[in-house]
Amino acid sequence: MIFRTDLALEKQEALEDASPRGVLHAVKDENGVRVTTICIRNEKGEQALGKPKGTYVTLETPTPLSDKMLLSSLRRALSAELCKLLPQSGAVLVAGLGNESITPDALGPRAAKHLFATRHINGEIARVSGFDNLRPVAALAPGVLGQTGIETAEILESVVRGISPAAVIVIDALSSRRLSRLGTTVQLTDTGLSPGSGVGNKRAEISLRTLGVPVIAIGVPTVVDGATLIADWLDSYGIDPRMEPQFSRESFMMVTPKEVDLLIDRAAFVVAMGINCALQPTLSEQELLELVK
Amino acid sequence: MIFRTDLALEKQEALEDASPRGVLHAVKDENGVRVTTICIRNEKGEQALGKPKGTYVTLETPTPLSDKMLLSSLRRALSAELCKLLPQSGAVLVAGLGNESITPDALGPRAAKHLFATRHINGEIARVSGFDNLRPVAALAPGVLGQTGIETAEILESVVRGISPAAVIVIDALSSRRLSRLGTTVQLTDTGLSPGSGVGNKRAEISLRTLGVPVIAIGVPTVVDGATLIADWLDSYGIDPRMEPQFSRESFMMVTPKEVDLLIDRAAFVVAMGINCALQPTLSEQELLELVK
Amino acid sequence: MIFRTDLALEKQEALEDASPRGVLHAVKDENGVRVTTICIRNEKGEQALGKPKGTYVTLETPTPLSDKMLLSSLRRALSAELCKLLPQSGAVLVAGLGNESITPDALGPRAAKHLFATRHINGEIARVSGFDNLRPVAALAPGVLGQTGIETAEILESVVRGISPAAVIVIDALSSRRLSRLGTTVQLTDTGLSPGSGVGNKRAEISLRTLGVPVIAIGVPTVVDGATLIADWLDSYGIDPRMEPQFSRESFMMVTPKEVDLLIDRAAFVVAMGINCALQPTLSEQELLELVK
Amino acid sequence: MIFRTDLALEKQEALEDASPRGVLHAVKDENGVRVTTICIRNEKGEQALGKPKGTYVTLETPTPLSDKMLLSSLRRALSAELCKLLPQSGAVLVAGLGNESITPDALGPRAAKHLFATRHINGEIARVSGFDNLRPVAALAPGVLGQTGIETAEILESVVRGISPAAVIVIDALSSRRLSRLGTTVQLTDTGLSPGSGVGNKRAEISLRTLGVPVIAIGVPTVVDGATLIADWLDSYGIDPRMEPQFSRESFMMVTPKEVDLLIDRAAFVVAMGINCALQPTLSEQELLELVK
Repeated sequence: MIFRTDLALEKQEALEDASPRGVLHAVKDENGVRVTTICIRNEKGEQALGKPKGTYVTLETPTPLSDKMLLSSLRRALSAELCKLLPQSGAVLVAGLGNESITPDALGPRAAKHLFATRHINGEIARVSGFDNLRPVAALAPGVLGQTGIETAEILESVVRGISPAAVIVIDALSSRRLSRLGTTVQLTDTGLSPGSGVGNKRAEISLRTLGVPVIAIGVPTVVDGATLIADWLDSYGIDPRMEPQFSRESFMMVTPKEVDLLIDRAAFVVAMGINCALQPTLSEQELLELVK
Repeated sequence: MIFRTDLALEKQEALEDASPRGVLHAVKDENGVRVTTICIRNEKGEQALGKPKGTYVTLETPTPLSDKMLLSSLRRALSAELCKLLPQSGAVLVAGLGNESITPDALGPRAAKHLFATRHINGEIARVSGFDNLRPVAALAPGVLGQTGIETAEILESVVRGISPAAVIVIDALSSRRLSRLGTTVQLTDTGLSPGSGVGNKRAEISLRTLGVPVIAIGVPTVVDGATLIADWLDSYGIDPRMEPQFSRESFMMVTPKEVDLLIDRAAFVVAMGINCALQPTLSEQELLELVK
Repeated sequence: MIFRTDLALEKQEALEDASPRGVLHAVKDENGVRVTTICIRNEKGEQALGKPKGTYVTLETPTPLSDKMLLSSLRRALSAELCKLLPQSGAVLVAGLGNESITPDALGPRAAKHLFATRHINGEIARVSGFDNLRPVAALAPGVLGQTGIETAEILESVVRGISPAAVIVIDALSSRRLSRLGTTVQLTDTGLSPGSGVGNKRAEISLRTLGVPVIAIGVPTVVDGATLIADWLDSYGIDPRMEPQFSRESFMMVTPKEVDLLIDRAAFVVAMGINCALQPTLSEQELLELVK
Repeated sequence: MIFRTDLALEKQEALEDASPRGVLHAVKDENGVRVTTICIRNEKGEQALGKPKGTYVTLETPTPLSDKMLLSSLRRALSAELCKLLPQSGAVLVAGLGNESITPDALGPRAAKHLFATRHINGEIARVSGFDNLRPVAALAPGVLGQTGIETAEILESVVRGISPAAVIVIDALSSRRLSRLGTTVQLTDTGLSPGSGVGNKRAEISLRTLGVPVIAIGVPTVVDGATLIADWLDSYGIDPRMEPQFSRESFMMVTPKEVDLLIDRAAFVVAMGINCALQPTLSEQELLELVK
């Protein structure tokens, strides 16, 4: 049994070899936010971390997102890191994935409500409203397979073919190994979404390979696998749950803290604002706040 | 000034010539529901009614939808009329149009939540769950231009190209000339959506011509144009508001009754269930109710 | 037939005699907000306006509440006028009346969500949190008779007896004669609530007489009576609808604009913040915004 | 360190002595629902279970509440057990406690929305509507201290003094020791609410002693204390977490499963319908369903 997490950072932390081959690793602290960049450079790195080749940036804050200064630092760090991963110009399609009616999976759809869609603001309207230097942004909340009957990947492929963006950003709720990371950590990656990851276990890959344009995935952990939680504690006492017959993975649920509503609302807003700021450098944070609130 | 309505029936009622050329008209009553079928057959008919060529079926109930029997009759009539307009087999894409956060425009998105999406239920899953004779249905709530930056028509074109359905059904809130029709009347048409109709004044055409497959539009009036309301009363006293300088169309709003929340919820549920029943003839109404509630 | 309104200002405007006996009337403009104070001083005034003796302050803004500056002016004017009507010290019970699930009647319950309740912040907690000079405020959303089986007046009487506040503020949605006033006008009065007023036609009186402490009612019109709307237009053409057999009051609904959701949200927030500012003069507007948002 | 639970049944299960003095214990199975009745008869029993003297009835279903038959069995069992604890006639006040905006604490307010309030249906209205044999029921969702500034106990005391019911029922979310009990177990007790129990840790006692009338508390566990979860596993390996310095209770959260929204909705509906059926024996389950849905 291996613990379950969608964070590259937690996979790295779990390795016995702190510097495996094929993996680069850098850490910096910025206004209270820890920024860890992990680059998986080749197949050796892929095997070591069990994740596809690419860059994974993790933003961590020490405490739940109740501190206004910290929220602001996190938003800025997210915006800065996103700019590095995105092409510098061209239209961007942002998709908030997940099921709006299951709170821990609702990060994507809730973030989508705070995105500033601009693709339709052009020509006369742009001139009159003073919005004449906007980067074109389209925003979608495509729903989940059980509601739509269509794989999310399939909807995105169709829309990408229709509107030809320069890049796609997908927002999704993740699972973490630690309760303390829920709602306090953000992961950005240029590898898109892997099959089977995320809270709702979305099935199909969403990436440069499948969409034909760069795909940046932004995720926030909102659940912990119950089996992982217990196994970690047993492990710290030298007990290997894989050897224990009464420890059956199936008997566990994904758990989330009691305060999940607040945690999702805050994280969705930070992620949406981080994206808005990265995509519209000609507008101030204050202007964007008023446009999407 | 001409009064505003999205209902072919109200345009017909307003004509001085009760049987204009190029327009066929039939009425029947079924379990308390009046079913009026208007066929616009040629350009003469199009000019007379100001609507594109095609079939418009209007279902009217005498009172607000609080009577359970009547709700049930309406659902059945809707289902029966829809079957006549739809191709007999093949996948169907159903799209609930409108803005979920403006109640009178939320008919489409709310109906989408009660649709039974089945396109992904096949192979092993279908056999195991006993759902092995379902018609493939995909369901979407694509949002509105101001939220997404993409014309609804554009999203539907992309998805239609991606999943190749045999037909498309769009659900949308409409405007009516009379307060008494709000939430009590349903219009079905095989002409799809015309530019500029609907509560949110959706702009681009959605039809066989633009999507390449038959498009059935199902609408329920949820607003009345304030200017139309007043003009109708003035007209009944022989006053022509067009001649009156103080009567400026711009000074009016679209209005909706105080009970709009209940009205939209009931209408969305009836429309969704009417569609579910028409698309899944192998399931009983009771089975479908439990699947989508 | 008399038109229907809950605003003293509209009753005054409708009088043929602009200065009836027993009624004082003053108007001023403050940063774009028109403040009209009407004092009904005796029975003569009560007969003229059909309202109980007392002070009615109406705050009007020229346009819907989309302008940030105007929202801010309205909040301040509301706060200033409320201070004049309230006792200067002592605990205050604020009650948001109405039915949360009928949007035009939801002003009170939604405002209650943005109130800063402070009655429980005292002793050690107050010292530690730095909140040591707060006026005690209790906040309730008691629901409506159909949901609770208890008259709102009865609940308030019980709670007033239990917690002995120095004054009560009730927030309620009102009806207006004009569509243009919906969501743009606020009425404050020291007469409390009259039987039969309000969107949900609350039945029992809530006032100094029934509660034993001063009752300030703050209301925002959110609906117009359809019959009033039509009758006003007919009247402007010299037609008296009372003489017309086809004009039956019963055939009309209360109507509200299509944008009712936005209108209620904005008005609820302005009213709540106006109350918060009036009750906590030791906190800045910015501090209060962050506490209740 | 003692594990945390609000269920008498779990306290009993944890005892080394299966039949402590002062505690009676009976189990029966009814249509798939296990009904355990624990009577704490005296101080000895109070010390053994750490709960006040009285009757605790626990209804357990083997699986999450997705099975329609089981939901129905649970509803009936709840109704039958509630009838045994309630006085046979007289008005009843039902209060849904908790914070509506924190999902795991929202059981009470959500159940309150499905209660059939009848206290106001009398005289002419009752005769006309055919409801002439109803037991008077009042229903409240009083909110939480942080929102209202008033202790829930204080609001209930005031309202009880005002309307003089024969009994009070309070509905509240509880904590359990086991994830598998969340949303699948219901506890009824005639001891009311103890200080400090419940998901939101409501502080003041609500009981016959404080309200002066019998108080039945109905609770459903919706959270598990994280520390309890881990400690239980460690304990099963002979590790006593109380001896472990790294095991600090404070570092844990209350957790809830990912599906908390669905779980709360279902449990709230079952509890409300169980109460409705117990209080209105002259109406059928079907009639009540249509009245409150």
